[in-house]
Amino acid sequence: MFEQLGLIGCGLMGGSFALAVKKAGLVKRVVGYSKSPSTTERARQMGIIDVEAPSALLAVSGADLVLVAVPVSASEATFKAIRHLITPNMLIMDVGSTKLDVVEAARRVLGAHLGSFVPAHPIAGKEVSGVEHADAELYIGKQVILTPVEKTQVGKLKKAIDLWEAMGCHVQQMAPESHDAAFAAVSHMPHLLAFALMHAITSQPLGKDFLALGGPGFRDFTRIAASDPKMWRDVLVANKHEVVEQAKMFQRSLLNMLQLVEDSQGEKLEAMIEQASQSRAHWRMGQKGK
Amino acid sequence: MFEQLGLIGCGLMGGSFALAVKKAGLVKRVVGYSKSPSTTERARQMGIIDVEAPSALLAVSGADLVLVAVPVSASEATFKAIRHLITPNMLIMDVGSTKLDVVEAARRVLGAHLGSFVPAHPIAGKEVSGVEHADAELYIGKQVILTPVEKTQVGKLKKAIDLWEAMGCHVQQMAPESHDAAFAAVSHMPHLLAFALMHAITSQPLGKDFLALGGPGFRDFTRIAASDPKMWRDVLVANKHEVVEQAKMFQRSLLNMLQLVEDSQGEKLEAMIEQASQSRAHWRMGQKGK
Repeated sequence: MFEQLGLIGCGLMGGSFALAVKKAGLVKRVVGYSKSPSTTERARQMGIIDVEAPSALLAVSGADLVLVAVPVSASEATFKAIRHLITPNMLIMDVGSTKLDVVEAARRVLGAHLGSFVPAHPIAGKEVSGVEHADAELYIGKQVILTPVEKTQVGKLKKAIDLWEAMGCHVQQMAPESHDAAFAAVSHMPHLLAFALMHAITSQPLGKDFLALGGPGFRDFTRIAASDPKMWRDVLVANKHEVVEQAKMFQRSLLNMLQLVEDSQGEKLEAMIEQASQSRAHWRMGQKGK
Repeated sequence: MFEQLGLIGCGLMGGSFALAVKKAGLVKRVVGYSKSPSTTERARQMGIIDVEAPSALLAVSGADLVLVAVPVSASEATFKAIRHLITPNMLIMDVGSTKLDVVEAARRVLGAHLGSFVPAHPIAGKEVSGVEHADAELYIGKQVILTPVEKTQVGKLKKAIDLWEAMGCHVQQMAPESHDAAFAAVSHMPHLLAFALMHAITSQPLGKDFLALGGPGFRDFTRIAASDPKMWRDVLVANKHEVVEQAKMFQRSLLNMLQLVEDSQGEKLEAMIEQASQSRAHWRMGQKGK
């Protein structure tokens, strides 16, 4: 399907992508670059990339597929670094958890090549990061959101869809703005709340004793709190408007429930919990709601 | 170990307890009662109980082990219902998620029998409730917190410890007040936050579309939001003082983080996330923190 993948960022997401496309025979050769030379070397030793590139620009050279798998705040600098070697036959994608900021960075920097860029967000990840956790199975069965813009070339979009589907993913298209609103609700808020709860507990004198008592519910609820701080700092700031909007709606529900708790208003409290419980009980990952 | 278990409440927790003690040969016979006759009948059909009792009082008759597995708000009424058939050789326990309110109900009602009551909270559960989900393995490997009071008889406490350990649990003792503070932090707050997030999302016009995009992080974070509304209404109200205290500390962390997001204060935000991420990454269920 592709001759050469130019991979910029050999971390969990990029490394897993390289492993997956090689395993599926979708790409013949992977040239990789990471900001940290030790990461790039590690990726080569692990067989994730075939050739180490000394710069992002040189990773792109000769590639017909480019994956930008860097923290979203580094998107613009990465586009600037590679733009002089972008050729018309290249398909360029990212894997960022926010889309509007990445699309805007691409608009500012890529110029005539904007049509070759297909913004992508695979809904996959782990609470651990780094090349050592790269996993050829990470994307299998997962949803991938593509957020093409007006200038996106139809041919490139089709190639992107075919590629992700060949990797076993379910592809969906959305506007970047809709993507960011939805993921503020179902991803960025859960991360923020999990971080805030862990921060609040560990800031208390008895926090460590409390933590020792956490059970399976606590384990699952806080799993994402172990996620990469740099990546999540970037995501939250990049999507701040939507995050703040969702936080307002969350606070309305939380403060309402807390008031009912304080006032021992069992019936009203139960009705609110019931709404939450019912919708979660009927929810299935990857399924459209009724 | 015991001749006859009197089980009051044949739901998930009570039913699983009965299955576990029978399977382990710790009890010869189980007499069960549930408020709903259809639940009691179902429990007998499923082999969870051997005999249906027509009332809580008659479930206790002749038992040397009594388990009160009802919503915490029903504890006092249940103690009142059974107190006239409590005998000195009985060990009485509960499985409530809050302890101070249950202990106070026992103090008010049990009189001279208070010493036979060993308050217990097994840290186990499922996001589904009801007798049909009863599971003989539910308690294996889990922590059980016992919160004896001054009047608790040492002999009954020892029997309780031996019983839970024979079921494969790790037993810990705490004061009821310490228990409630700790579980407000690591259990009641996570539930409240998961309920509030689901409530907030499902209250939005696009909520259903958003939910369809939730990935593995969302799945795990919100799993406990499907929990039983009646049970959790009770737990939150019963432990309101500690929950409100923990909510204040949580809000301090959350509002602080949100302000840093709005102000694009990446460095400070990362430091807060780092504290959360580090402590969660080093956390293991059932292990004392460093």
